[in-house]
Amino acid sequence: MENGSQKWRFQGNKRLNSTSAISLRGIIDMLIGNLSTDDPRPIIPLGNGDPSQFPCFRTSTTAEEAIVDALHSTKHNGYAPAAGVPSARRAIANYLNRDLPYKLSPNDVYLTSGCIQAIEVALAAITNPGANILLPRPSFTFYESRAAYENLQIRHFDLLPDKGWEVDVDAVQALVDENTVAMVIINPGNPCGNVYSYDHLKLVAETARKLGILVIADEVYSHLTFGSTPFVPMGVFGSIVPVLSLGSISKRWVVPGWRLGWIAITDPNGILQKTGIVESITGYCNITTDAATFVQGAVLQILENTKDEFFSKLIETLKEAAEKCVDGIKEVPCLTFPSKPEGSMFVLVKLNVSLLEDIGDDLEFCMKLAKEEKVIIVPAGMAFGMKNWVRITFACEISAVEEGLRRIKAFYQRHAKKQ
Amino acid sequence: MENGSQKWRFQGNKRLNSTSAISLRGIIDMLIGNLSTDDPRPIIPLGNGDPSQFPCFRTSTTAEEAIVDALHSTKHNGYAPAAGVPSARRAIANYLNRDLPYKLSPNDVYLTSGCIQAIEVALAAITNPGANILLPRPSFTFYESRAAYENLQIRHFDLLPDKGWEVDVDAVQALVDENTVAMVIINPGNPCGNVYSYDHLKLVAETARKLGILVIADEVYSHLTFGSTPFVPMGVFGSIVPVLSLGSISKRWVVPGWRLGWIAITDPNGILQKTGIVESITGYCNITTDAATFVQGAVLQILENTKDEFFSKLIETLKEAAEKCVDGIKEVPCLTFPSKPEGSMFVLVKLNVSLLEDIGDDLEFCMKLAKEEKVIIVPAGMAFGMKNWVRITFACEISAVEEGLRRIKAFYQRHAKKQ
Ligand SMILES: Cc1ncc(COP(=O)(O)O)c(C=O)c1O
Ligand SMILES: Cc1ncc(COP(=O)(O)O)c(C=O)c1O
Repeated sequence: MENGSQKWRFQGNKRLNSTSAISLRGIIDMLIGNLSTDDPRPIIPLGNGDPSQFPCFRTSTTAEEAIVDALHSTKHNGYAPAAGVPSARRAIANYLNRDLPYKLSPNDVYLTSGCIQAIEVALAAITNPGANILLPRPSFTFYESRAAYENLQIRHFDLLPDKGWEVDVDAVQALVDENTVAMVIINPGNPCGNVYSYDHLKLVAETARKLGILVIADEVYSHLTFGSTPFVPMGVFGSIVPVLSLGSISKRWVVPGWRLGWIAITDPNGILQKTGIVESITGYCNITTDAATFVQGAVLQILENTKDEFFSKLIETLKEAAEKCVDGIKEVPCLTFPSKPEGSMFVLVKLNVSLLEDIGDDLEFCMKLAKEEKVIIVPAGMAFGMKNWVRITFACEISAVEEGLRRIKAFYQRHAKKQ
Repeated sequence: MENGSQKWRFQGNKRLNSTSAISLRGIIDMLIGNLSTDDPRPIIPLGNGDPSQFPCFRTSTTAEEAIVDALHSTKHNGYAPAAGVPSARRAIANYLNRDLPYKLSPNDVYLTSGCIQAIEVALAAITNPGANILLPRPSFTFYESRAAYENLQIRHFDLLPDKGWEVDVDAVQALVDENTVAMVIINPGNPCGNVYSYDHLKLVAETARKLGILVIADEVYSHLTFGSTPFVPMGVFGSIVPVLSLGSISKRWVVPGWRLGWIAITDPNGILQKTGIVESITGYCNITTDAATFVQGAVLQILENTKDEFFSKLIETLKEAAEKCVDGIKEVPCLTFPSKPEGSMFVLVKLNVSLLEDIGDDLEFCMKLAKEEKVIIVPAGMAFGMKNWVRITFACEISAVEEGLRRIKAFYQRHAKKQ
């Protein structure tokens, strides 16, 4: 055997190392790494969309009991079928059917390990050499990394801040070519906190149909709305255009750590079947991991038995938190928002750096804010391609939201340009 | 809008549809679909490596309680860090360190959703355009599908039935070229039920080192041994050759549905770090889903508190089941096995079709056996590239193993060639 001079033939996956370089988790970790350790005040975490740590966002006891029951039944310790436990597929189909003008069958639902894996499956199922996908700008970063990983070329259409973050439909039409296969819609929106109207979703559906592309509808924040626009699932327009509807229990039940999501084939005309997309979804489910079986086994009880009061209290809390958040933002001259958030857990806020003395962009703003004030918010340039915007999460204890905005105001005052 | 004549631009992922076509789940589903519905006798499921449904294989109450505690703590409802919950990484490092001549740090351990996802991560991390990987024949089918999906070219080296399914080291040397990056070792073996000696593993490590390739050691059946050869982790030879050690709680705790596994970087010389493999592992963990956080939160308690009696009873049961299984096989003239199983949950058995009247190969044998006797065993031609072999699982109630073999004998007698 040689020594020292040993040659190895392997090396890290170069494409992976470049495509996975920027992730929201990574950015937030970087900000946390920048926190001052001398400051005795608590951290104000307005970065993540994960309020599960806060007592006022504790999940329903029904959901917790459902998990314990499924575990103790000992019927769910084994492998699940690749597409999911039948009772869970049926429960999710029934749950989605409440809001659809046609009926999904249990076979239209595929269980996944969170909406994250639903995105993995959906993108794997539609990719082919040369294919491209239309993603909103801004959008959830994971789509960028995973599409790049799957060799799906990415084209961006803008969401229009002055029109409630609606899709720039003209831009979509201008971007499509014969290799475009799909467009992604996130509703309620991350990072924008917007909720699309029935009419706008219909227009998107008609546009996609005209262009011959399918719609991936990320509805992980479904039903988390507290403004004047109600949540409408994209699947409502499934007979106009085939839709892959992605969802999970992560947000509405505040249990992102439970890792349970789904893809529903909301396509009453069976086009996704005919074009082999359904076969590819089945195929990818066969060659990847699953949600824990006992979590799948608990889904029926979770979806059917969670009390309305749990949901209404959650919405009340989010609504109040969103209001405190926007009230606080109004106190900070360098921050403005085009519209009040109506759903999800976020507001996307424009940063006017020209009002600041010694801060050049959103990244510097967020880094210094973390260091000086122990407040974490997301720089939207790096995270979402929206330079000089920041994303603030209001899904947090109300008092923490208020305290966070007070600190941001103090931070502004210290860094404001002297007149 | 057009009608009827609507043209769609998307189609299923062609490569995916071909690479995921054959899976063990798919084959077993096909056999189950072939069961006779008239036959009132119970099914004898000797197909899967998942005994969790049988009372004698029920998991330890310590493990169940650990999950309930983690859930009720409400500290584990949120997202976990991409590499895993720190307490779980530390617990797994300590667990593996019991059998290693050097010490892993918690940072050497990445949590995954079962060993399945550990395989996903490992293969994603080492692939690059043109790279190839050496897989054993026979091996666990998932490696084939996932390598194909990742565009890793596959080359097979044989395991030698007459040498206790040892690696044909000469074949490995003959297969390698400058694009070979890794070889896979499954120990204890699936589908062969063999356990490699210290000396054989050392020889494999030295061979891999000479060739400059890393070793992926699938140790999902670690510690499930009941013959004369003790389990030795490949990581013991980590200073000879860098090893990615894959494992999970699925088999030793009989909870495959809990979906908790890991990759450990068993590489005291830091070569996987230097060559960017560790960066790729981190990168892939950033762009995929995770094991449920509360299952991760339970790992420390599961690994540290499970009683020795639980493990010794499990081994006793497996050992007895394996013995009943081989005793039964000896009664069936068309079935022979090169060596008694010493570990895992399986025995790979040679089928002599020349003794049979109306059965052409292993697939026909298994299909007719399912139909006529309601016994499920796996045709190894389709599943593992071993034509005219079958895999029999003995991880099952002892009485079911005995009954299964009685039915196989009756089946043989009906189909045997008349002298
Ligand atoms: C738009 C969007 N999609 C998907 C996800 C992932 O959700 P899950 O926790 O169900 O995997 C998130 C999480 O923040 C999200 O914001
Ligand atoms: C060799 C081998 N590796 C990996 C796995 C997957 O294990 P897990 O349940 O931990 O995902 C199996 C399952 O049967 C297996 O046999």
